[in-house]
Amino acid sequence: MPEPMPALIESLRRAVGAAHVLTEGDLGAYEQDWRRRRTGKALAVVRPANAAEVAAVVRCCAQAGVAIVPQGGNTSLSVGSTPDGSGRELVLSLTRMNAVRGIDKDNLTMTVEAGCILQNVQHAADQAGLLFPLSLAAEGSCTIGGNLASNAGGTQVLRYGNARELCLGLEVVTAQGEVWDGLRGLRKDNTGYDLRDLFIGSEGTLGIITAATLKLYPQPAAQLTAWAAVPSMEHAVALLGLAHQHLGAGLTGFEVMGRFALELVNKHYPQLRVPFIDQSGVPYGVLLENSDSESEDHARTRFEALMEAAFEAGCVQDAVVAENLAQAHTLWHIRESIPLAQAEEGLNIKHDISVPISRIPAFVAHTEALLAREVPGVRLVNFGHLGDGNLHFNVQAPAEGDAKAFLRDQEARVNALVYDAVAQFGGSFSAEHGVGALKVDTLAQYQSPVALGLMHAIKQALDPQNLLNPGRVLGAQQPPSST
Amino acid sequence: MPEPMPALIESLRRAVGAAHVLTEGDLGAYEQDWRRRRTGKALAVVRPANAAEVAAVVRCCAQAGVAIVPQGGNTSLSVGSTPDGSGRELVLSLTRMNAVRGIDKDNLTMTVEAGCILQNVQHAADQAGLLFPLSLAAEGSCTIGGNLASNAGGTQVLRYGNARELCLGLEVVTAQGEVWDGLRGLRKDNTGYDLRDLFIGSEGTLGIITAATLKLYPQPAAQLTAWAAVPSMEHAVALLGLAHQHLGAGLTGFEVMGRFALELVNKHYPQLRVPFIDQSGVPYGVLLENSDSESEDHARTRFEALMEAAFEAGCVQDAVVAENLAQAHTLWHIRESIPLAQAEEGLNIKHDISVPISRIPAFVAHTEALLAREVPGVRLVNFGHLGDGNLHFNVQAPAEGDAKAFLRDQEARVNALVYDAVAQFGGSFSAEHGVGALKVDTLAQYQSPVALGLMHAIKQALDPQNLLNPGRVLGAQQPPSST
Repeated sequence: MPEPMPALIESLRRAVGAAHVLTEGDLGAYEQDWRRRRTGKALAVVRPANAAEVAAVVRCCAQAGVAIVPQGGNTSLSVGSTPDGSGRELVLSLTRMNAVRGIDKDNLTMTVEAGCILQNVQHAADQAGLLFPLSLAAEGSCTIGGNLASNAGGTQVLRYGNARELCLGLEVVTAQGEVWDGLRGLRKDNTGYDLRDLFIGSEGTLGIITAATLKLYPQPAAQLTAWAAVPSMEHAVALLGLAHQHLGAGLTGFEVMGRFALELVNKHYPQLRVPFIDQSGVPYGVLLENSDSESEDHARTRFEALMEAAFEAGCVQDAVVAENLAQAHTLWHIRESIPLAQAEEGLNIKHDISVPISRIPAFVAHTEALLAREVPGVRLVNFGHLGDGNLHFNVQAPAEGDAKAFLRDQEARVNALVYDAVAQFGGSFSAEHGVGALKVDTLAQYQSPVALGLMHAIKQALDPQNLLNPGRVLGAQQPPSST
Repeated sequence: MPEPMPALIESLRRAVGAAHVLTEGDLGAYEQDWRRRRTGKALAVVRPANAAEVAAVVRCCAQAGVAIVPQGGNTSLSVGSTPDGSGRELVLSLTRMNAVRGIDKDNLTMTVEAGCILQNVQHAADQAGLLFPLSLAAEGSCTIGGNLASNAGGTQVLRYGNARELCLGLEVVTAQGEVWDGLRGLRKDNTGYDLRDLFIGSEGTLGIITAATLKLYPQPAAQLTAWAAVPSMEHAVALLGLAHQHLGAGLTGFEVMGRFALELVNKHYPQLRVPFIDQSGVPYGVLLENSDSESEDHARTRFEALMEAAFEAGCVQDAVVAENLAQAHTLWHIRESIPLAQAEEGLNIKHDISVPISRIPAFVAHTEALLAREVPGVRLVNFGHLGDGNLHFNVQAPAEGDAKAFLRDQEARVNALVYDAVAQFGGSFSAEHGVGALKVDTLAQYQSPVALGLMHAIKQALDPQNLLNPGRVLGAQQPPSST
């Protein structure tokens, strides 16, 4: 029988100070997920100031048998950071822990607390003349702790990797309320199991990340952006290969956008002037970014050589290179406006899938035809990070009819069609948004029984009381297979 | 009580074929570690042909309660792949599993079996016009499975990362004798815990890697090598910073070598003609490699601009850029001859440490003075991958006297002095050689109790019978702390 709640609240107040235990008033900002899929109810919200306080909170909750939902900027796209509706889960907000602890320029590292907003991390690196390359749409709100807990991706992965690849060390509070100080700034360290990468991407279910040591890079001397009109997805993949050859590590962005996605932007934000939208016979646009360590002139020469080769190979129908930073920002803004244009257009079903890059053309052809046949009238909003094999293969409700009813009746079926196809092509149903509460059943369905067995064993070993973000990532333990 | 051994041998013969269960004749190649530190005795050596046979072997051993030592090229520098002396451990050799299963050029990936020799992996990538950048001294003998199991490093880490960063997917046989097929060629995949990185670097104690999907890169258009005479370790670190700025991702090698290390090469291999060895007042040599995606002319221009800036900043006393591939090979050969020259010179104590790059000058000054004071007569052979903060801070026995007696009497003390200093400077006692059987006590001493507790919990969860490489990485379970 758990300890009565008033005693827990009292011990939490002792642990973090009464002002930082919120039980009354509007806690909606902590209880509502980013995409407004589910509204939860928190037992309370605690806002510790440091790792020792986080550890004290965990010990209080362990004693009371109360589950903890760690939360940063609360921008999870998979309902990973809000409490369920029971009113019995505690939200542990890390937003007070927002210090940049230090930057080590010679070591190309910085150490930050989990509650630092991603944009502030980027800014601190920039002030030191260095680059922290993680970049994604929510960067003004999301925190680095959440980025690491969900192994965030974004637009620079093809050059710099996911959040995982940008992290050298962690400070983590365990389910036992101990602090693991793994804040090492080492590029080579083989002294036992890789705890760092186990906590990264575990979405707060194995431990609570309280600080991290991150990799920094030299800033590029120049950055150029181009937009290419491309005759097919096959040609987009061929263009990617040419871009790797010509630009090497200079290639820091390669985004593909299907015509319908761009038509939505053009319809709802005509002032953005989508390139080549008036040309018929342009099924895809590709945005390329070249980050050059030398000079803008050099970057432009390299880009021109790439485009020449691409025209010659027939990969590109037309292309434009941004003349200045403002033009470059506009091109990126078009790309980033696709989800907003989708929302303006109405309800839609979002996917965040990845497939080996070589198989993307076949996957897209197969799945477009399948959906057109099985769910007449759906409109595909296909765009994403082609350089990483990651597509946001979204499905807009038919133009006519009741979109709400469509989602209610068809979402599960559309998901099953898409995820089955993804599995068939060797892909993943969650490339960069994680599992959260939203895709627990999907994980149980599409991960192999062997992998699920290993994951459950690890969860049981590190959090035997099931205190940390329970029911996220993993559901109830699978029955052992009958073999 | 374990099943009697004849029954086990019989069941192993059924599992892999009698010809592939070795119990008689000279098994020395499987029983002796690479550095000849310890000679073991195997119960038998089994050589399965595929993952299903590996799984069958594991199930046989689980039933018999017999421990398994996975082995690839048997080049572990930490006694990680040979049996102990009990005659009760089975060696599971993966060398028959040496197929390249496939190369996917558009996805920039290849899938290989664990027993592929690293050089063959590099060669297969090269034949496809691509680069697999993992490169280390033992590449003609070591296998990719062992590279991954020990998260090998080498000379290209500053650009491409360790073995871990070069792997996208794994096939692993678990301690339960099941096959996990995690051979995904995806750059973004967040569907549960990071099993891949948990197996990588676990040195065969959590599962047996049987195949891997690896990242490939475009080949550079040109590769240039230079050698700089550098007035101090501080200047070497400053040169590294300039090289990052000037070469960006072109910087693929940055090796530092102390004067005494180079004098040993010069003494034992005078035909190699170590640059600047006759100039007095040159305490360090630095080898730099620039891999250019454009052309040799461009690479040379960039290198010259770097060297000009370095001379101006006083980082470099003298420098030479290799004029052709043969000269470049010779420069690398000098670097790679240091361990051989050390062996010619006599017995020595090897270290494989890392420290944040910014702290390396202070660490070296501190530890050199400490050793000179505490162990009179020792000679430091200091060299390594400065670009990764990784030094092979080796200690040669004094020139006069009995080197064997020196090692017997002083090795533990020298190690304690060096590892204490490493810990004090925020470093690691094992950067790229792993723990094996050799450094189990060191791990228990220098890892935090919280980390050790987590590692033991994971080992217990995944291998409750302690069948897989027992006593390597982790020793007996720690008693719980008294708090």
